[in-house]
Amino acid sequence: MERIIVQKYGGTSVGSIDRIKHVAKQIVSVKNKGNKVVVVVSAMAKTTNSLIAKAKAINPDPSDRELDMLLSTGEQISISLLAMAIQSLDHKVVSLTGHQCGIVTDTNHKKARITEINTDRISKELLEDKIVIVAGFQGVSKDNDITTLGRGGSDTTAVAIAAALKADQCEIYTDVDGIYTTDPRIVKNARLLDKISYDEMLELASLGAKVLHSRSVELARKFKIPLVVKSSFKQSKGTEVVEVNAVEKVSVRGVSLDKNIAKLSILEVPDQPGIAFKLFSTLSKNNIQVDMIIQNINRDSVNDISFTVKQEDLQEAIKISQNIVDEIGAKEVIYDEGVSKLSVVGTGIAGSAEVASTFFESLYDLSVNIQMISTSEIKISCIIDEQHGEKSLVYLHDQFSLGIDALENKAV
Amino acid sequence: MERIIVQKYGGTSVGSIDRIKHVAKQIVSVKNKGNKVVVVVSAMAKTTNSLIAKAKAINPDPSDRELDMLLSTGEQISISLLAMAIQSLDHKVVSLTGHQCGIVTDTNHKKARITEINTDRISKELLEDKIVIVAGFQGVSKDNDITTLGRGGSDTTAVAIAAALKADQCEIYTDVDGIYTTDPRIVKNARLLDKISYDEMLELASLGAKVLHSRSVELARKFKIPLVVKSSFKQSKGTEVVEVNAVEKVSVRGVSLDKNIAKLSILEVPDQPGIAFKLFSTLSKNNIQVDMIIQNINRDSVNDISFTVKQEDLQEAIKISQNIVDEIGAKEVIYDEGVSKLSVVGTGIAGSAEVASTFFESLYDLSVNIQMISTSEIKISCIIDEQHGEKSLVYLHDQFSLGIDALENKAV
Repeated sequence: MERIIVQKYGGTSVGSIDRIKHVAKQIVSVKNKGNKVVVVVSAMAKTTNSLIAKAKAINPDPSDRELDMLLSTGEQISISLLAMAIQSLDHKVVSLTGHQCGIVTDTNHKKARITEINTDRISKELLEDKIVIVAGFQGVSKDNDITTLGRGGSDTTAVAIAAALKADQCEIYTDVDGIYTTDPRIVKNARLLDKISYDEMLELASLGAKVLHSRSVELARKFKIPLVVKSSFKQSKGTEVVEVNAVEKVSVRGVSLDKNIAKLSILEVPDQPGIAFKLFSTLSKNNIQVDMIIQNINRDSVNDISFTVKQEDLQEAIKISQNIVDEIGAKEVIYDEGVSKLSVVGTGIAGSAEVASTFFESLYDLSVNIQMISTSEIKISCIIDEQHGEKSLVYLHDQFSLGIDALENKAV
Repeated sequence: MERIIVQKYGGTSVGSIDRIKHVAKQIVSVKNKGNKVVVVVSAMAKTTNSLIAKAKAINPDPSDRELDMLLSTGEQISISLLAMAIQSLDHKVVSLTGHQCGIVTDTNHKKARITEINTDRISKELLEDKIVIVAGFQGVSKDNDITTLGRGGSDTTAVAIAAALKADQCEIYTDVDGIYTTDPRIVKNARLLDKISYDEMLELASLGAKVLHSRSVELARKFKIPLVVKSSFKQSKGTEVVEVNAVEKVSVRGVSLDKNIAKLSILEVPDQPGIAFKLFSTLSKNNIQVDMIIQNINRDSVNDISFTVKQEDLQEAIKISQNIVDEIGAKEVIYDEGVSKLSVVGTGIAGSAEVASTFFESLYDLSVNIQMISTSEIKISCIIDEQHGEKSLVYLHDQFSLGIDALENKAV
């Protein structure tokens, strides 16, 4: 039986006429191996920015609905051009907008969520032996307005269509080779992973790995869609993102460093019920995501509450915290932008005393002070001073034997 | 009661950020006078050509369906930008694609015809006091594919929507002041017409006047939509295109010169029934529009058949004619690209012996030989040598007292 393969190409992969022609050849060769192929495409690199610049020149604060109307043309241009490139290779092909391929979303413009996919049109075109090119990042609301899916949108389109079609594989083509044990720009001997579990990938994505957006990984996990991340520029096996039982049994899969972190502390909070709830629910209502939280019980029934947010949310978080300080009679809000989050990620970490002790011991070796700690089933994170971030990352990568050079010494 | 006004702005009128802002102000001022306003917009000037250039760089012969998918983004960009400009003037507005505003067409990509307009969405938005911005030139087929309407498409969109909404007026904004008695680039004292009938406008359009496409005029005539053609760049009354009984009673409304003409002759055609039918039906099947036809009965039961086509169709017409010459045993095909069509247009011309005699006498005065003649209810045309075209146009314009300077002497 024919396999159904969903491929996704990002903006850089279709960033020029030559790249589009290259991608077209690659798609046709996969089709000619006897697969049914659906291809999700982003806007050509730079198109989106150029459209936004035009919009801002006309109106610094346009409505989200009109921005979506404007930006969705970016993908519509790239799908039609890619379809034309495939036609010139004498293969049957059809391009479809988000609306045409039945991607229904809620009405939250600029960050819509897919509520339903009606695959009738895609299935019909596949039956007619066509390659189907789908506009990523976009859908249509129940009100028949064009919506865009926001960050990670095209990956999400690809995984959602793969799920709806019960595809055999979803391939994400990007400008890197796959998922590494850590950031190869910082750690020279970072190793490309053959496989990683959905959960591990989710942790790495939320820790700042830019390759896959957590949204698409969550969706892939939910529908058990095997994801493959690979380079659109060179031949490579890439990295498979799969269920946990399909992954080799290694406790530490990767280490990561997130510099986009700020720490806030509210000092001398009176010890009354509901204060933490009030703080964090107010932050949440303002779309500020709080990551780590610690509360120190002090003497005299007053606590210090510390938490971390993304740097772009810092000013807003300070304002909200200050209001609450005034309201409840706490002492003051202090903050620190000079912190980073260092993490180790891997299935089964929670059950391994060794991983935690290696982590903490490594920081001790480097005389790096740990400001906050949080753990989950598959992750341990520490907040440390930003200036020690990169050297700690390199050292940890080494201590957990994650590098290329350490491969032979490992029990794989 | 509020009047419904449909406005249409061409590509030059929204050709830059500044022009879009200017048009936005004009629209809001019409809305603020208590009208309901629907605005049809073309792609920004140059956008369409730049998209076509990208397509051709990828595939010299892309499918019409994919070209429509690509080109329709041009209008989608201009409607969203214009909507943003209106938002910045603090007015409620919504932009709609051809699909969203219910413009259903047949499946003839690149030259689709509108089969139906479902105005529910537009009416709903107007009820909410919004200015409605509609993408011109595009629609959606029954198969849910994006189609474009071809030449004159945005004008056609505007008139069709005006008809569907039973609008009080349809205003076509363009880069000229309105309709002139003849081409003002050739005849310096050409006069701007206050009014012209649909039929006269149709003849002028088919004779090469570029201001309005005959398609939109036909539609306006069918649904009795009062059209106004005026400049988007300066204040002017423009020209009203209305029913014949609403036009001043003058026999000659304008004169025109069409240089985009070629003449073919098939010599010594055997005098058998069905030969002319075969020739002209074959040309028609190949989408070649034949304009004037004359047949000269010669001695010995052989005829010469001469006819005119547009210059871009000449090569194809020669090929088809040559096949027929071979088939029926005629002598040969000859052709002449150096001809032009000179016409006078006006309601009631057919009933006026004076118009015809003034026309022919004028050409006699100039020693210009008439190669072919055709007449209709409201038009007389002659094929003449191209080199005499412009001087004949100027002279005729004068002889029929059409110029600015002649206005006072006329019985209006």
